[in-house]
Amino acid sequence: MAQIILSINAGSSSVKVSVYKANGKSEDPTQLAEAQVEGLTAPPAKLKYERGDEKVKGKELDGIKTQEDAFRFILDQLTKDEGLPELNHIEDIKFTCHRVVHGGDYPRSQIIDEDTYHHIETLSDLAPLHNAPALTIVHAVTSLLPNATNIAYFDSSFHSTIPPHIHTYPIDQVIAKRNQLRKYGFHGISYTFIVHAVSAYLSKPTSTLNIIALHLGSGASACVIKGGKSLDTSMGLTPLAGLPGATRSGSIDPSLIFHFTHDAGMPSRSSSKHMHITTAEEILNKNSGWKSLTGTTDFGLISASDKPECQLAFFILVDRILNYVGSYYLKLGGEVDALVFAGGIGERGARLRSEVVGRARCLGFELDEGRNEEPGDGVVTDVGREGARHRTLICRTDEQLEMARGVTEESERFEGGEIAG
Amino acid sequence: MAQIILSINAGSSSVKVSVYKANGKSEDPTQLAEAQVEGLTAPPAKLKYERGDEKVKGKELDGIKTQEDAFRFILDQLTKDEGLPELNHIEDIKFTCHRVVHGGDYPRSQIIDEDTYHHIETLSDLAPLHNAPALTIVHAVTSLLPNATNIAYFDSSFHSTIPPHIHTYPIDQVIAKRNQLRKYGFHGISYTFIVHAVSAYLSKPTSTLNIIALHLGSGASACVIKGGKSLDTSMGLTPLAGLPGATRSGSIDPSLIFHFTHDAGMPSRSSSKHMHITTAEEILNKNSGWKSLTGTTDFGLISASDKPECQLAFFILVDRILNYVGSYYLKLGGEVDALVFAGGIGERGARLRSEVVGRARCLGFELDEGRNEEPGDGVVTDVGREGARHRTLICRTDEQLEMARGVTEESERFEGGEIAG
Repeated sequence: MAQIILSINAGSSSVKVSVYKANGKSEDPTQLAEAQVEGLTAPPAKLKYERGDEKVKGKELDGIKTQEDAFRFILDQLTKDEGLPELNHIEDIKFTCHRVVHGGDYPRSQIIDEDTYHHIETLSDLAPLHNAPALTIVHAVTSLLPNATNIAYFDSSFHSTIPPHIHTYPIDQVIAKRNQLRKYGFHGISYTFIVHAVSAYLSKPTSTLNIIALHLGSGASACVIKGGKSLDTSMGLTPLAGLPGATRSGSIDPSLIFHFTHDAGMPSRSSSKHMHITTAEEILNKNSGWKSLTGTTDFGLISASDKPECQLAFFILVDRILNYVGSYYLKLGGEVDALVFAGGIGERGARLRSEVVGRARCLGFELDEGRNEEPGDGVVTDVGREGARHRTLICRTDEQLEMARGVTEESERFEGGEIAG
Repeated sequence: MAQIILSINAGSSSVKVSVYKANGKSEDPTQLAEAQVEGLTAPPAKLKYERGDEKVKGKELDGIKTQEDAFRFILDQLTKDEGLPELNHIEDIKFTCHRVVHGGDYPRSQIIDEDTYHHIETLSDLAPLHNAPALTIVHAVTSLLPNATNIAYFDSSFHSTIPPHIHTYPIDQVIAKRNQLRKYGFHGISYTFIVHAVSAYLSKPTSTLNIIALHLGSGASACVIKGGKSLDTSMGLTPLAGLPGATRSGSIDPSLIFHFTHDAGMPSRSSSKHMHITTAEEILNKNSGWKSLTGTTDFGLISASDKPECQLAFFILVDRILNYVGSYYLKLGGEVDALVFAGGIGERGARLRSEVVGRARCLGFELDEGRNEEPGDGVVTDVGREGARHRTLICRTDEQLEMARGVTEESERFEGGEIAG
């Protein structure tokens, strides 16, 4: 019987499920299919489905409104797909991996039992906007797939190695400890993938790998990785800090929001009994970023436009990225194996890479403009100029695969785990 | 008749007045005396007075509780000092210079007439904690010294050259424009002094001077200066953003304060009819920083202590400073004339300089440890290792002198200015 692993990534408006077949501990699992329901917050929701050469895109779905609806629909789609005999019986699903944004102090993935579920719920007070979708799915999975072991992968775990003088905020330490206020950092599943992929590409053990990694998507962050471990990252207590994103301001003067609205501390309209969000957090996470500057969340459109507001948004991102490149170069004492671009914008944004790397020449980074324009589709691609002091790479990061791989590598730790009730 | 200039710097708990005699347009004014009343918020207030060899320190003062009390007392002290015949008649005071923290879009100093006074009052909504003391003094001066011309020097003016892609926050632009929300930057009077002093020291015209300047005091900031002009700085809409200070958090996750207290948006206890301050702004400006980590605002004590909390505070500041050194080096494309330390901690903090510069070696900065320990008392001192790729300097910045010099250089612009009623 094939061991099937589902990697599940639930965001505020989408649910993505990748189906893998395990190939034993030392080999990467094989992806069998990938299903995604998008547009939950802008109905009708749409299905994207890929299995081998079979591709569905943009299929409108009626009555799919919540993350749970979407997950039920996807499960149905997968088990009924005749081209996917490995998943005819949902009992074949051995593991489900859940991407959970905020994992507090958890330094690694956790089997989700009743205790961990409640602990993650508590943690979610720190990042309710980000953790709530995953918790909804975990809840649904435990009733739909009672035989599967649920494992939480946290975006924060990779950053548990950040030292205290970097993760401590200079604020009242009694309250900081009580309320668990420190820099956590996120995108850690992606950074784990990047470390493994770049290490393999450079034939360099992860324990000696020094890179500056940029995960640039609708949420964007930077990370300095020394000896394979996170030394600093741009996000903080929540994913709001650091680089701007599609609808997120990134770091701003902490007093700004009080000059933006008198309601900063009031509960936002999207608050509920179970989810406490202030107006400030709603504005800065949902109504800011390059959407607020240009009207679109599509950075590809922004990059290609010569409208002044698009140029402004584009060069704001270039500027903020360079702030981290400079500071992280110094944190590595100049001993940098590579500057790595990842995430949708990092992978597809040739102009962005060109502007960033062009301004980092004094540190020894240079692009090969030809390869930058057409980097191909390898997992890792070198787009640096031959002979440049430091390499510049693109890494096609894959959080879904990273979670599935984590399960197969650590299956002993997870066998026999109990499922939340 | 000598032309007397008073340079006045009013903070939340102190008022400092420096007395200068003008020596014409092309020569620096001569300092005749300096008086400071400290401890207004921790009575009894104390006087510090220097005139030539005459020195008073720590003299306790009864009944001096407000900035206005302090200014009246100082004026009395100055006019009654027999060793200061130049100031026997207060009519001899031709100009008073006021350090005003927030000057909005003012790109240079302004004569304070009724219009400018009211405009500064309006601006002060953006930084009430910081502008209020100066406005109190301006108000007092107009009645006590009806013949003097009042000139406001703004800490923000120097940064009016920061380009839009650096000064724009990625937030709703309609509200940003209406509420004047952008990066302004501060410590500009000090940075102006530093540019002039370093330019003279290196015999290099200001228009070609590229430096990374660190003004490190109980308020701390970093600034990258290209061709003598501010290109970026660490403070933002208000002085809260950027580096931590004695009681200031510096940059933190913008959502942190809502996880620190449920009262973040409520008016603070120090709010008044004329000064609107939220609890958040009070906490982050007054109850954070290294005081909240160590119990003291004295960074000298912190540097010298081996207590874990002091070591933590020390290396937090080192880390945050290095973030700016790295990013500003890149903004200058590596063409850096000097890294400049200024402000009380910048001038006296030999250990801090040693730890910062030691970690910036990969960029070409190196200290001469002997000169770093005993830099002497020149306005500018080179403490870099001979042969290092870039210089490291200490600059004894003097905001009081910079304002007085500004008056003598631009006296044509100021003659005949009207005084606020």
